[in-house]
Amino acid sequence: MPFEHRYRRTVQFADTDMAGIVHFSWFFRYVEEAEHDFYRSMGFSIHRRGDTEPWGMPRLGARLEFLRPLRCEDVVEVHLWVRRKGRRSIVYQLEMRRADELVAKGEIAVGSSRTLADGRLEAVPLPAELSAQIEEAPYPPLEFR
Amino acid sequence: MPFEHRYRRTVQFADTDMAGIVHFSWFFRYVEEAEHDFYRSMGFSIHRRGDTEPWGMPRLGARLEFLRPLRCEDVVEVHLWVRRKGRRSIVYQLEMRRADELVAKGEIAVGSSRTLADGRLEAVPLPAELSAQIEEAPYPPLEFR
Amino acid sequence: MPFEHRYRRTVQFADTDMAGIVHFSWFFRYVEEAEHDFYRSMGFSIHRRGDTEPWGMPRLGARLEFLRPLRCEDVVEVHLWVRRKGRRSIVYQLEMRRADELVAKGEIAVGSSRTLADGRLEAVPLPAELSAQIEEAPYPPLEFR
Amino acid sequence: MPFEHRYRRTVQFADTDMAGIVHFSWFFRYVEEAEHDFYRSMGFSIHRRGDTEPWGMPRLGARLEFLRPLRCEDVVEVHLWVRRKGRRSIVYQLEMRRADELVAKGEIAVGSSRTLADGRLEAVPLPAELSAQIEEAPYPPLEFR
Repeated sequence: MPFEHRYRRTVQFADTDMAGIVHFSWFFRYVEEAEHDFYRSMGFSIHRRGDTEPWGMPRLGARLEFLRPLRCEDVVEVHLWVRRKGRRSIVYQLEMRRADELVAKGEIAVGSSRTLADGRLEAVPLPAELSAQIEEAPYPPLEFR
Repeated sequence: MPFEHRYRRTVQFADTDMAGIVHFSWFFRYVEEAEHDFYRSMGFSIHRRGDTEPWGMPRLGARLEFLRPLRCEDVVEVHLWVRRKGRRSIVYQLEMRRADELVAKGEIAVGSSRTLADGRLEAVPLPAELSAQIEEAPYPPLEFR
Repeated sequence: MPFEHRYRRTVQFADTDMAGIVHFSWFFRYVEEAEHDFYRSMGFSIHRRGDTEPWGMPRLGARLEFLRPLRCEDVVEVHLWVRRKGRRSIVYQLEMRRADELVAKGEIAVGSSRTLADGRLEAVPLPAELSAQIEEAPYPPLEFR
Repeated sequence: MPFEHRYRRTVQFADTDMAGIVHFSWFFRYVEEAEHDFYRSMGFSIHRRGDTEPWGMPRLGARLEFLRPLRCEDVVEVHLWVRRKGRRSIVYQLEMRRADELVAKGEIAVGSSRTLADGRLEAVPLPAELSAQIEEAPYPPLEFR
């Protein structure tokens, strides 16, 4: 049963800032792209569901440590694994590499929620077709500063 | 001596995603906007220095816990305070509020670096005109999940 | 009856790219921010409507000529005016200035549409509370290269 | 000699807005990604040059007509061709398609400039290694509304 995923993408010019390196907010987007690509690899789409009510996977928390800068046209690989699978949330840990160099590491917690008529989000169990397909990775926890 | 800053901004349409709420990467941008606004309030600019060599404040780490969603045209206030002032880095803690509601809390660590001729970043002491103006806030540390 | 609007905002660090200037895609976002601010100034919100069906203002076309670069912490003013008001669309023309310098000029056409059950957009008349409040500006048309 | 390029990419979740479709500013980013990918396909990089002085390709103008919305996980193809090759600029025209459907068409003019010591941009001839490799496409001009 899958517990990890690797996703590669090329850094685009528009991802950089005037310091000449990728803006830190983009690292978080790369992580989310990797997560959604993980779901697609299992035939699960973040958004195309036949449900009548709006459902989504809001971020509950996110953290990254930035070890090295990324630059335009670098190829970055996000390695993402399931750290904890709950009934209504998943915690991923991750490392980002350019070739063999570790450029960032982090953790992201995502929930499962439906949107009520008044616009509020309500936590609901993870969709079975996702939850049934993933398991926790047998990796030791990352340590953060 | 200043140890905290409050920054308000209106959520723009383009900050939202198809879930109808602000994309989480934007929360990190709001935090950085608040930080840069803090510097401007002290007459210090993140980028307009007479130096001959490129200098900047790269992010060393960032974390946020998302407690409530933000929506288009909400006014969000970032309250940022200095948690630790080092020789070459600053750690900020922060809370984000919409009116009286806490929507997120977090921490961001920023360094001070110059760009070497080969493009690598080298840590250097914080500019004196910034460092001399701020001090650590007398607040207890935030607790994270 | 209003036919124009002026909107100011400070260029943020994250709006820049590795060329040290504001990425061109951000100019389009500044224009949209100005347009939505125009609506807010008339008490009309782009998104908070009591309607039961989803409604929006999709962009039909957009063009800009870039005359000068914008940089971090510049204050840019978007001056937007109604060039044509149709039954189901509005064409705006605009100029962007930093102090007295013209930095860009352009045009944007926006429609009015509702989202059908199958996700397609269908053009519908502009909301009366918006349409009734604006008129065409008595300005000669901009010329483009 | 190459005069056109095709570039495919998957729409990411973060490219969408609360209307459930790709925000229009992202269409412009997709076009730029396609342009840079065109250069890479000829062994030319937008940014990695041995030059001692900063050089870049600022956008002089850009326009798009939006014909159909794009949604999360759509695969969009940008077809870009050289409309005019000048000494110091290139004008591209383009069409964007999802499968066989035309979703947008447009034009983008890009210059070649170096950054002076005072930060201003000065137009300079296109790099020979780029200019020598491309020619104008034998296509009739696009017509815009």
